[in-house]
Amino acid sequence: MNACKLALRQEKIHRTIIEVPGPASAPVLIGQGYFTLIAGPCAVENREDYLELALRLKQSGAHILRGGAYKPRTSPYSFSGLGMEGLKILVEARSVTGLPVITELMDIRDLDAVCCHADIIQVGSRNMQNYALLKELGRINMPVMLKRGLSATIEEWLLAAEYVLQAGNRKVILCERGIRTFETATRNTLDINAVALVKSLSHLPVFVDPSHGSGLRRLVSPVAKAGLIAGADGVMVEVHQHPAEALCDGQQSLDPDEFDRLSLDLQKLAGHEKRIWLDLY
Amino acid sequence: MNACKLALRQEKIHRTIIEVPGPASAPVLIGQGYFTLIAGPCAVENREDYLELALRLKQSGAHILRGGAYKPRTSPYSFSGLGMEGLKILVEARSVTGLPVITELMDIRDLDAVCCHADIIQVGSRNMQNYALLKELGRINMPVMLKRGLSATIEEWLLAAEYVLQAGNRKVILCERGIRTFETATRNTLDINAVALVKSLSHLPVFVDPSHGSGLRRLVSPVAKAGLIAGADGVMVEVHQHPAEALCDGQQSLDPDEFDRLSLDLQKLAGHEKRIWLDLY
Amino acid sequence: MNACKLALRQEKIHRTIIEVPGPASAPVLIGQGYFTLIAGPCAVENREDYLELALRLKQSGAHILRGGAYKPRTSPYSFSGLGMEGLKILVEARSVTGLPVITELMDIRDLDAVCCHADIIQVGSRNMQNYALLKELGRINMPVMLKRGLSATIEEWLLAAEYVLQAGNRKVILCERGIRTFETATRNTLDINAVALVKSLSHLPVFVDPSHGSGLRRLVSPVAKAGLIAGADGVMVEVHQHPAEALCDGQQSLDPDEFDRLSLDLQKLAGHEKRIWLDLY
Amino acid sequence: MNACKLALRQEKIHRTIIEVPGPASAPVLIGQGYFTLIAGPCAVENREDYLELALRLKQSGAHILRGGAYKPRTSPYSFSGLGMEGLKILVEARSVTGLPVITELMDIRDLDAVCCHADIIQVGSRNMQNYALLKELGRINMPVMLKRGLSATIEEWLLAAEYVLQAGNRKVILCERGIRTFETATRNTLDINAVALVKSLSHLPVFVDPSHGSGLRRLVSPVAKAGLIAGADGVMVEVHQHPAEALCDGQQSLDPDEFDRLSLDLQKLAGHEKRIWLDLY
Repeated sequence: MNACKLALRQEKIHRTIIEVPGPASAPVLIGQGYFTLIAGPCAVENREDYLELALRLKQSGAHILRGGAYKPRTSPYSFSGLGMEGLKILVEARSVTGLPVITELMDIRDLDAVCCHADIIQVGSRNMQNYALLKELGRINMPVMLKRGLSATIEEWLLAAEYVLQAGNRKVILCERGIRTFETATRNTLDINAVALVKSLSHLPVFVDPSHGSGLRRLVSPVAKAGLIAGADGVMVEVHQHPAEALCDGQQSLDPDEFDRLSLDLQKLAGHEKRIWLDLY
Repeated sequence: MNACKLALRQEKIHRTIIEVPGPASAPVLIGQGYFTLIAGPCAVENREDYLELALRLKQSGAHILRGGAYKPRTSPYSFSGLGMEGLKILVEARSVTGLPVITELMDIRDLDAVCCHADIIQVGSRNMQNYALLKELGRINMPVMLKRGLSATIEEWLLAAEYVLQAGNRKVILCERGIRTFETATRNTLDINAVALVKSLSHLPVFVDPSHGSGLRRLVSPVAKAGLIAGADGVMVEVHQHPAEALCDGQQSLDPDEFDRLSLDLQKLAGHEKRIWLDLY
Repeated sequence: MNACKLALRQEKIHRTIIEVPGPASAPVLIGQGYFTLIAGPCAVENREDYLELALRLKQSGAHILRGGAYKPRTSPYSFSGLGMEGLKILVEARSVTGLPVITELMDIRDLDAVCCHADIIQVGSRNMQNYALLKELGRINMPVMLKRGLSATIEEWLLAAEYVLQAGNRKVILCERGIRTFETATRNTLDINAVALVKSLSHLPVFVDPSHGSGLRRLVSPVAKAGLIAGADGVMVEVHQHPAEALCDGQQSLDPDEFDRLSLDLQKLAGHEKRIWLDLY
Repeated sequence: MNACKLALRQEKIHRTIIEVPGPASAPVLIGQGYFTLIAGPCAVENREDYLELALRLKQSGAHILRGGAYKPRTSPYSFSGLGMEGLKILVEARSVTGLPVITELMDIRDLDAVCCHADIIQVGSRNMQNYALLKELGRINMPVMLKRGLSATIEEWLLAAEYVLQAGNRKVILCERGIRTFETATRNTLDINAVALVKSLSHLPVFVDPSHGSGLRRLVSPVAKAGLIAGADGVMVEVHQHPAEALCDGQQSLDPDEFDRLSLDLQKLAGHEKRIWLDLY
């Protein structure tokens, strides 16, 4: 069954809204007019910094916290995350802020641990076609964010989502994070067409990751706002107290002040576009 | 001299504003906070339809009319434009509406004819590195819109502009119109990163062409608006009375009603972003 | 550590030769002047056909048999292999022909099963950056063939190999199988440059897969031979009794007669290039 | 008419053989089993060096001399060739060696000058879709080598050739010179599939340019030989007395000794493949 046929089948279902329970009294809602802001550092580096940043991000308007405990790295010699210790720090940030947390799952054997600690499970670009992982995620009852593969066509991306949906889990969020092209001035090429096209083909919520999508700090804010306008249901942004000292992805991370301004801009733009912005602070 | 050094040099000059004289009393301004809307069919197909459409587009808010008289076509067997007859129709539309016109120059031997009839000369993607053409355009005193090549890096694009600038013509407008990638669901991949990056590297105005940039009618409006938000100084949109019957690019052309709505959306969004929108009607 | 530094480090070690034990008295050797021919269908479809084909392939000169038991498929609705039953058929073909077998491992939980039945473990393109899988393969003592990812740079490919090497398994074979580009006339673009470049950067053996690399039956033979000339240590070719009826990849599979001719051509060309061709029949 | 239909139409004509007259008594033949070697520096830099190199290249077995008089350069500040002076040096080399010469035409206004001095006119990648130029070349009676555009599909390339053929000049030689992909370890990605595919789709001769196709000196020889094996009718190779001092493309130029070895290897391989190698020395 190809993506067009899938799209037709999906026409018959309602546009998906996903509830992310989290520790607070009311769940965070994703899709159906809500605009959702996910923020945090590439990796959880240590407890103190992460908790401080988490509180600051909540103040700035973030709805969900991100932070990698298991990091896929191109080289086996790079920092690959704190693992279980990172998961525990996420849980602490979650109870301190009341915000849900999202983190990446790379190894199927970590599924139980990640499920127990996080509110949304992220599948990274490198694992978009890790079908064993996708099928397992189809058997749980938790939101899954599926990032588009570096060179995955839109059809392949929707069919990867279908692995999770078909196995029974309908809480899938798509995330456009830039594709690989010939251009080297930017880390990736954020495919703004794909955001608009997937919104018309699929009933799943679609996010934009302007940090990986551009790879350059000064492009993060304009590209995030362009994503909202093109129809995205939310953005996921990398923020770090001291980007220059980040253990990974510093050159594409905003500092907290830059994030403040972006959050404010997004709130205004969401208002202009008649989108719903949850105020959790 | 590479693009980075060029950018540094350009820092010292003022951000360019370009006056497009046209037949009306006041010129259309491009750049420096103005947001400019160019619209029209891919090709000028016949006098009657073009004039009718031109008046309709002016009513909808277009600032400049587009229309191809000489069309570059992948196959030698496709319709390649009306040539001189098309130029004359453009001139008539110009005097009827009071709007300036832009049209493409492909052959250096048509330079005089195109200069005499149009207000802005467009260099298409296939000719972005036709250096003989670029150098000649550097010797005239008219605005030139330089479309990005299908697989040109941002550096190559800025260096192509430099051919015109260096030869003495400083009225260069850049236009991002989508790059060629592996994705086949869309005709091209509009590089939204490039819009934001070029705005920070160069003082030249940057436009977005969401029609070629996506190739699909339903994506034109969201992508046009995303372009404005990312910092573009204007958009160029293909519009046709009856897209299904267009001699070229029908599947990516808006009909006049769709264009009405897009123009209105862009005006509101320009207001939100504190951009200046000339009211010519 | 980047690929260049890795290459330097690898300069100090001997050019790798890999012994594939198999059921026959003498092992099949890979690398260091040997040219090795791997052949078989995309997927093991049923016992009878596979055994018949395996004997035919041995007659034609194949050194190693391929056949997928677990197939990664873009859509969850496509045929995904016979699983354990497929592995058993491979083992039977192995004992009937005396040839070693290679098959793909997709799910880390199948590692023991695949190790017990196959002689070489293949990591497919989609899993080139499945680091959990790579690390586990670094802990076993069996040859691993690492296919290049669809859009992996040469540096990323060598660093993925480093995950296996660093964990202790030095029996890594690289396989160029075509990259994803804008060209749609062929399924992928076989990167012949990469074959020659990796031979100069790394001491690992490099194979070429002209079946996936081109996706078109009529290109398989010229591209396989070009691979040998560019320096490849072997080729892996898809062959099916009745390509038109294959459950997957029929349009890129040779029939046994075409394979006969290719094998003969490769033997002659290997002779011309002073490469060693094992005669196992 | 698309490329497939063109291919069918071309089936009815004979496989093209092109005679390149040159100053010698017998013409150089291209296509139909002949394998032809074109060599020379990227640009003609000065008379003395060019003549010395030309004689050396003839000794090594080159059939045709290359050398740019007009050079397309990404930046307007780079060396762009000697122009008419370069053409005159080519003519002198031609009479001294008896070999025909090929040089690039960039500007339609230089057509007469280039036609008068060269034996084959080269259309570079950047001008593959410069239709005004192609149509003019269709009106002359001289061989034209059409290089594939940096991101041109095979269909677009064949349709560009059709512009020349349809206008009446049937002496078209195609040249694969690498396409632009995401890979940055090599300058371009030589599309070996395209060589084999175009040989089956078109009756025009196809060359390979391993210098631009790889961009790295150590890859030139293996890639040139792979091109022969994949079916190419010839190769075009950049050679320079002192590559490190070349005004352009030094990093991809062979020195004369390397070229000697390549020429010898190609002669042997051509013999193995039953191709005809003209001995002009």
